[in-house]
Amino acid sequence: MSGDGAGRDPAGFAFAVTGRDAASRARTGRLTTPHGTIDTPAFIFCGTKATVKGLTMGQVRAAGADIVLANTYHLMIQPGAEVVAALGGLHRMTGWDGPMLTDSGGFQIFSMGHGSVADEIKGRRNQARAETLVRIDEEGARFRSYKDGRELFLTPEGAMQIQRALGADLVVQLDECTPFHAERDYTARSMEMSARWGDRSLAEFARTDDGRQAVYGVVQGGTWPDLRRVSTEYTADRPFFGTAVGGTLGGDKEEMRAVVAMCADHWHPARPVHLLGIGGIADILAGVALGIDSFDCVSPTRVARHGWALKKGVPGERINLRNARFRTDDRPIDETCDCATCRTVSTGYLHHLFKAGELTGASLVSQHNIATMTRLMREIRAAIPGGGLDALRHDWLGE
Amino acid sequence: MSGDGAGRDPAGFAFAVTGRDAASRARTGRLTTPHGTIDTPAFIFCGTKATVKGLTMGQVRAAGADIVLANTYHLMIQPGAEVVAALGGLHRMTGWDGPMLTDSGGFQIFSMGHGSVADEIKGRRNQARAETLVRIDEEGARFRSYKDGRELFLTPEGAMQIQRALGADLVVQLDECTPFHAERDYTARSMEMSARWGDRSLAEFARTDDGRQAVYGVVQGGTWPDLRRVSTEYTADRPFFGTAVGGTLGGDKEEMRAVVAMCADHWHPARPVHLLGIGGIADILAGVALGIDSFDCVSPTRVARHGWALKKGVPGERINLRNARFRTDDRPIDETCDCATCRTVSTGYLHHLFKAGELTGASLVSQHNIATMTRLMREIRAAIPGGGLDALRHDWLGE
Repeated sequence: MSGDGAGRDPAGFAFAVTGRDAASRARTGRLTTPHGTIDTPAFIFCGTKATVKGLTMGQVRAAGADIVLANTYHLMIQPGAEVVAALGGLHRMTGWDGPMLTDSGGFQIFSMGHGSVADEIKGRRNQARAETLVRIDEEGARFRSYKDGRELFLTPEGAMQIQRALGADLVVQLDECTPFHAERDYTARSMEMSARWGDRSLAEFARTDDGRQAVYGVVQGGTWPDLRRVSTEYTADRPFFGTAVGGTLGGDKEEMRAVVAMCADHWHPARPVHLLGIGGIADILAGVALGIDSFDCVSPTRVARHGWALKKGVPGERINLRNARFRTDDRPIDETCDCATCRTVSTGYLHHLFKAGELTGASLVSQHNIATMTRLMREIRAAIPGGGLDALRHDWLGE
Repeated sequence: MSGDGAGRDPAGFAFAVTGRDAASRARTGRLTTPHGTIDTPAFIFCGTKATVKGLTMGQVRAAGADIVLANTYHLMIQPGAEVVAALGGLHRMTGWDGPMLTDSGGFQIFSMGHGSVADEIKGRRNQARAETLVRIDEEGARFRSYKDGRELFLTPEGAMQIQRALGADLVVQLDECTPFHAERDYTARSMEMSARWGDRSLAEFARTDDGRQAVYGVVQGGTWPDLRRVSTEYTADRPFFGTAVGGTLGGDKEEMRAVVAMCADHWHPARPVHLLGIGGIADILAGVALGIDSFDCVSPTRVARHGWALKKGVPGERINLRNARFRTDDRPIDETCDCATCRTVSTGYLHHLFKAGELTGASLVSQHNIATMTRLMREIRAAIPGGGLDALRHDWLGE
């Protein structure tokens, strides 16, 4: 099954569901872009400022990644979309020749300056609006650069134009990312405005469509089932190529699953569905069972830089390499992992590198964590057709 | 020609001169260790704390390096020689399977805490003795850990034992590295003590020799020709496998060449000669012409981390990637370089990474600088037999 309308399926792009789980909404698929085809469910690794921190794109590829993203918000500020364009666009500039996604910039505008992206999505409380956000109205969002404080203005049309200049395969409409603590009225009005921004995004996208990009609409609506339903139906009724589930996903993992489930009843069944900003192993397994086709999150590489290695089957999904128990441990992080890090070095060596403040430790563990996430997704894809998701969840989470 | 005595040529080790320059002392050779054979003149890349900063050993290898070193001083403090031994020794611990050298630790004891290693070797003035050095006498050196201030004591025998535990192929005797500002009397007495330390090192080395390591003696003597002569003759008369030229090399490049030339008249002609701590392209070309077979220096990777890319044929040997002129330059650092960095990314991208503080920039330029140094050495080896060193110097230095 592929996209069901010409407007929704630009030349060079396709999405086909290739298998289903009998017991859940989980499905396998193939997502085709001008820079290659990836199998889904897939994990999209974050190269925020056009680099996966501490790794070359060659290492990212060698670790098994087949799709990466970059952040419009960061790149419009530094080095600027016009510089990226002058350097040939994101693919040529970074040397990444596979599929690539950029977000719209909206998420960071609304979350920068008050806690991490993860805090915001996951609804941790006590978050105030970012001080860098000056004003938001129907026209767009006015905010200050995190770099030099200058005032910037981003509109739905502008976000499309900037993403054209950046040149990723998959792009995302500008939306307002409403936080967990927003009231229902605000969330409802914001969601409706994001829908109008979606229409403006599509109009701008169509105006300059050259078949090299495809656009995702974003579902908002907070934790209210009726708002999520309206927002999801809006995306399904418009000629978006894909559906992205955004905004707050609630205050805990249960609520996150409930919010995704609210959307799953209504999103366009033939389009790829992306869950924005989620990267925990348990959360991914839950999202897959609800029908999510792709995920992104900084966490696999961010935790790596702090000495945490993802590991199949351990409580909490990861181990802390700074722990003294690894000091003279000459075993790899995971004897069942075939990544370059596990093939060549021990946890004892990694412990030393982190204790000594050597950046090579971050690179080696980032490689391992990318490899582990790609392995998770590979095993998920293998498990879905045969009904093996529950057994896989047990293997990975040890529960 | 190979080593001329059983004591000087342990099983598994050999050095053979394979070619000579008619117009200078330059020579090509092959240096064999239990972990492989390298062609000389060679550059030994510094992995101070058992890692070339910011790179995996896979990247170091891919950039063309065939031999690396680690610093005894740093490793005895962190993680400790016993930990390296428990992790299988430096080769197994780091995943580097090629030839490896460790220094004796002496150099850092005498230079840490007051300016860089390069300052000390190159005789920049106004350097005081490191405050971490507590006392030096016939028995050994007492100093404080840079990490936690605890007092440590290193003897010639201890330096050998620690290097046994670390397990590099090539090891170095403990010496006192006399600085540029030392008076003649001090330098003479110190040089004589370093010679006695050399004898103690050889005795300890012989006591535990298992054929897996070979030891270099160190030439001291400051900038005084007669002292350099005595010290060099001392090393030639003892069963060292190789000769290392250490200590101050004078106040400028001319004096450095003069000091190396003082030694070149007297060192053992059949043994590999290493020049400690020198890594500039002009200095290497000069050293090669004086008969040096190997070099080491942190500079290729240290300058890379600050945004400097080595480049053949440019004034000053390098370019500053932070310079605004690279902002939208989509050309590689060096169009004649075939390293992974030059094959995949532009100076404009690297400029962005350094301006954004992204560590990937340091990794990419470190790879390029290693590749450039290995290319320099490759071109030097190719030039020597045909008398092409002068032309090569012109090509590299643009002068």
